[in-house]
Parts: sequence; structure tokens; C-alpha cells
Amino acid sequence: MHEHYLEPDRIRLVENLSYPDSGLIIADAILKQHYRDFFERNDGLPTLYMPASEKSKNHRSLAIIYTFFTKQNLKRSDTVHIYGGGIICDLAAYGVATFKRGCRLKLYPTTLLAMVDAAIGGKCAVNYQGFKNQIGTFYPAEEITIYPPFLQTLKPIELRQGKAEMLKCFYISEQLSDIDTSDSSIPGVSQILEYAKFKMDICAQDPHDQGIRRTLNFGHTFGHVLERLSGYRFKHGDSVIAGISAAIDLSLKLGLIDSEVDELSRKNLSSYPLPAAIDRFLSKLSIPDILSEARQDKKNSGSALKMVLPIGYRKVAIRDVSPTL
Amino acid sequence: MHEHYLEPDRIRLVENLSYPDSGLIIADAILKQHYRDFFERNDGLPTLYMPASEKSKNHRSLAIIYTFFTKQNLKRSDTVHIYGGGIICDLAAYGVATFKRGCRLKLYPTTLLAMVDAAIGGKCAVNYQGFKNQIGTFYPAEEITIYPPFLQTLKPIELRQGKAEMLKCFYISEQLSDIDTSDSSIPGVSQILEYAKFKMDICAQDPHDQGIRRTLNFGHTFGHVLERLSGYRFKHGDSVIAGISAAIDLSLKLGLIDSEVDELSRKNLSSYPLPAAIDRFLSKLSIPDILSEARQDKKNSGSALKMVLPIGYRKVAIRDVSPTL
Repeated sequence: MHEHYLEPDRIRLVENLSYPDSGLIIADAILKQHYRDFFERNDGLPTLYMPASEKSKNHRSLAIIYTFFTKQNLKRSDTVHIYGGGIICDLAAYGVATFKRGCRLKLYPTTLLAMVDAAIGGKCAVNYQGFKNQIGTFYPAEEITIYPPFLQTLKPIELRQGKAEMLKCFYISEQLSDIDTSDSSIPGVSQILEYAKFKMDICAQDPHDQGIRRTLNFGHTFGHVLERLSGYRFKHGDSVIAGISAAIDLSLKLGLIDSEVDELSRKNLSSYPLPAAIDRFLSKLSIPDILSEARQDKKNSGSALKMVLPIGYRKVAIRDVSPTL
Repeated sequence: MHEHYLEPDRIRLVENLSYPDSGLIIADAILKQHYRDFFERNDGLPTLYMPASEKSKNHRSLAIIYTFFTKQNLKRSDTVHIYGGGIICDLAAYGVATFKRGCRLKLYPTTLLAMVDAAIGGKCAVNYQGFKNQIGTFYPAEEITIYPPFLQTLKPIELRQGKAEMLKCFYISEQLSDIDTSDSSIPGVSQILEYAKFKMDICAQDPHDQGIRRTLNFGHTFGHVLERLSGYRFKHGDSVIAGISAAIDLSLKLGLIDSEVDELSRKNLSSYPLPAAIDRFLSKLSIPDILSEARQDKKNSGSALKMVLPIGYRKVAIRDVSPTL
């Protein structure tokens, strides 16, 4: 992979979005409605619209992408421009990464989640047999363009998913600025850039997810279990927030944090509008169910069950929790 | 990708083949017959046998591999041991490279072609819609084990395909030792290692196939056209030899070599037992047919048609031939 693309300067913040000169476009189908003038032009580039659904993040959609590339005779030296949220970025970037062993890739994240998380760091993947992102690779984009006005057409529920990943980052680094997780607020441009660059910086230090990058997985072990066991009924960010809450619980139980840190940590979570259904669902799960599912997580190896856990306020560490549970 | 795996020391020559301690095995189905004692043991590792056919080097076979990995709960830190020729190595390694974004990979090439070529350098892929290796990535094995006795069960026609790739290397470097391409001979152990390390060394200099590594494509532009237009009726090595012959023709026509070099170059080809059917097929193709097909080659970009051509005896260079044809 192109590790030199993992640098904060690859993230470009623009006030005006210019239409690409050449190459192909893959875009979330919803963008055709919201930004018709931009995408639907007479002299436009060949464009493939795809539905952004977790259920269609699979090899069938990948085949549609490969067929589009083949028909358009995409060359390795051609650029594919991808406009969309996390699902479209993950799916289409995996297509670009594997077509002719990799073509040029530029990402234009249209959701907050994609701007601060999914589009950063080169991970791309499809789901397989119910497991999220089971098939994938690392293929950083050569450029990530953040155009904040995209956020104005985002539903509050979508905006919240991005804030969830930001809140996760807030918990793993004391350096990041405070965030407002209440439903109505949109993070400022400079804060979006701050958080996006924070993630990029961590990825650059550990491109293949073998060390510090794993701290970005905070809240994800239980979060993924929740998504999977609920048949992806719950949104990713919401599930991560529930996972963070469960991780704080576990840290307190294991004595990794004291009640004071627990209380401080919960304070930031309290303003996040977590759907009550998630809490209810989580409370019905048994510990053995959760553990057996968590072991399937692709970041685990052998019999260990490694989790990112708080060891202080806004401080996390990776711990093997299998002997203690 | 793991570029540090692209080093000649990763190639291990062994006199005895020891059964792996742990992990999973994917093997060419034919090996079950030839090496039953080795593969079929009571305490053996989970093993998936796959047919080695160009027609099954596709996403359907990949799904069989992914399902095997999922059922066996393969972890990133587990090793997959792959025993087979070029097709199995390419296909299964692509499965390993993309499962959970990459697990550990060790290759045990069982054909001469795989020992000196397919298993070296990290390229892995599947075919797509009739295009060879259209979907793939770079994922070097952490170890390539060469066990020469495997060659004893190889049919002469298979052995010849490996010698074809060796002959190709012979043409691109004056440093390599002479090879005997007649049908009955098996190259010596030290020569196999010499040629395997030669390829590895070139790949290490240019992991992503952007410069010197492309010289390994000598004979392949026309070779791939031949394979594709014949519906893969002809073998890869044979097609490459026909492609080399055509490339020498073209170089002479373009004045890149003189008739003396042409004659010298042809001498080494003359002992190669190229099937007459290939020559007949090639002579029926029109130049426009060949060019239009050659432009589809994934190594080409824009309107250029870059080919590796002889510019002397055992000296090649990359030239854009589109303006001259």
C-alpha cells in the first residue's frame, strides 16, 4: 500500500467543490437528489450511483463496481473519485484497491462519520457472511477532500454517528478539543479537520493496525457485537457509544479506573442521545454471548480477547481481558 | 503490503518437506493423489483442496476459500500454507491477503513456473470477465519454500511453462546462467534458486510494478493477447514464448535491434518446443486485433501502448510503440 499517503496534509478542506477533470465517479445514490447540478451535467464523467446500505456492502455490489470499471476501460493511472459516507467509501475504495491491483483513489466524504473516520487511514472492505468488513485491504486515498456544506443535507441521526466516532477519539486523547454531542449541533470546520488529522496521524504511526492504531477501536469490540447480534438494526456510531459505556463498566469492574474517573467519563456520554432500544437490547445479552461474539472480531488472535479499555480519564490501553472474565 | 518480505532470503530451499505445525492448508487437488502420505494424515491441519484451472481462478473459488477461513475461524495471526502451482498460489494468496485485511501467508510452489515466477514478488489475483488477474493486490509471502522433488511429478508440458518464464528472464539479464529448454530436462536446484532470487531482487527494487519490475513483462503483452483471444486454450509459458518471438520481430522492424542480434536472440528460442498450433493461431491475427487487445493490458495507461522490447542481445527496455504501429 501507499503508506506515504497516510499524512495529515492529504486532507484538503475546500470552500467550493470543483468537478473532477478526468477519471470515473462513484457516488452515493442519494447525492443525485441533493446535488443534481453537481453530479448530473452534460459533459460529466461516467458516474456510478450506489445505494448506501450495510446490507449491500458485499461482493455483489463489488461486481457492479468491477463491471463499471471494465466497461469504462479504467486504467491503473486513472483516478476514481468517490463521493459518499462510510459505506460507499469502504466499498468503492476496496473496488479501486483491487481492480488491476490498484488504481488512483480520491475520496470526498459526504458524512461527518466519513470525514473524521471512514475516509481516513486506508481501510476498505466489504462484509462477508454477516461479519462486518471481513474482506478488505489497506489502500489509503491519495487525497481526501472535505467539503463541509455536505453536512447540511445530513439527517440528525447520520450526523450523530460521526459525533460518536469523534467522542471516541475524545476519550483516547487528552489533546483533542471538547465536543458538543447534542443532536442539533454541527461541529465546526476547524474541529472536523482537527479530528480527521488526529486519526490520520495515528494511522501514519501504525499503518497496518498492529499497535497504537488499535486504540481507535475503543468501544468497537462490544459495538460490533451489538451490531452483529441485532442484525445491523443499530447504527455504527450509536453501537460504539453503547460499546464505550460497556467498556467503562468493565474497566471499573476490573479496577482499571476508580469511581471518580468512571463518573467523569460518563459525563461526556450523558449528552449523547443514545436510542433507548440499544440500551434495552444490550441489557438482554448474556456475558457468554457477548464474549463468544467478540472473539470473532478480526483484531483478535488466539485465545486472547484484547480490548481497548479506559485506564484513566481520556486515557486508554489495550488489555487481554480473557483471563478476568 | 509487507515490502520487507520482498527479499531473496525469504526463499528457502529444502531437502525434506516438514508438515506445518499450525494454521490452515490450501492445496492443489492433484497433490492429494501424488503426496497422499504428506497431506492426508490423521492429525493433519484443516485442508482445502482446489482444482488448478484457469477457468476457476475467479470469485466463485474465492468464496469457497473465504467460507473455509470463516468456518475454521482463521485469525489474522494464523498462517495459511499454500501448496500448488501458479493458479493456486495466485488465487489462494489473494484470499489470504484480503481475509480480515490480511493473514499470515507461506507459499510452497509445486511447479517450476510457481517456483521461479508466480510465488515470487507478492502479486496475487483472480480473473474477471475473461481478463487475466484483473482483480488482485500485492501481498508478498513471508516465506517461500522450494522443495525440488515436487518437480518429479510434473508433466513435461507443465515443466516447459516454467522454463518459458526462465527463458524470459534469460533475455532480460545477461547475468543469468544458460538454460536448457529442451523438453526432457529439469533445471538444477541451484539454477532454480538463482532464477527465483533474480526475480525477487527485481521485485524488491520496484514492489508496485512501476519501473524496472515491468521488464519482467517481456513477452507478456502479446502473450496475454494470445491467451485471451484463444480463450486460454494455450498455456501461459508457451504464449509468453510466442510473445517473445513477436516482440523480437517488432524490435527488428522498429530498428531497435539489428539482424545480428535478431539471429542471436532467436537461437535460444529455437530449442523451445512451442506447439505449432500457437504459431498458426498467431499468424491468423491481424495487427489491429492484437493492438486493441493489448491496450486492455492492465499495465497500460492512457493512449500509450508500452511494451518491453529487446534493444540488444539479452537487453530490454520499455517503449511506447503506439506512435510507430
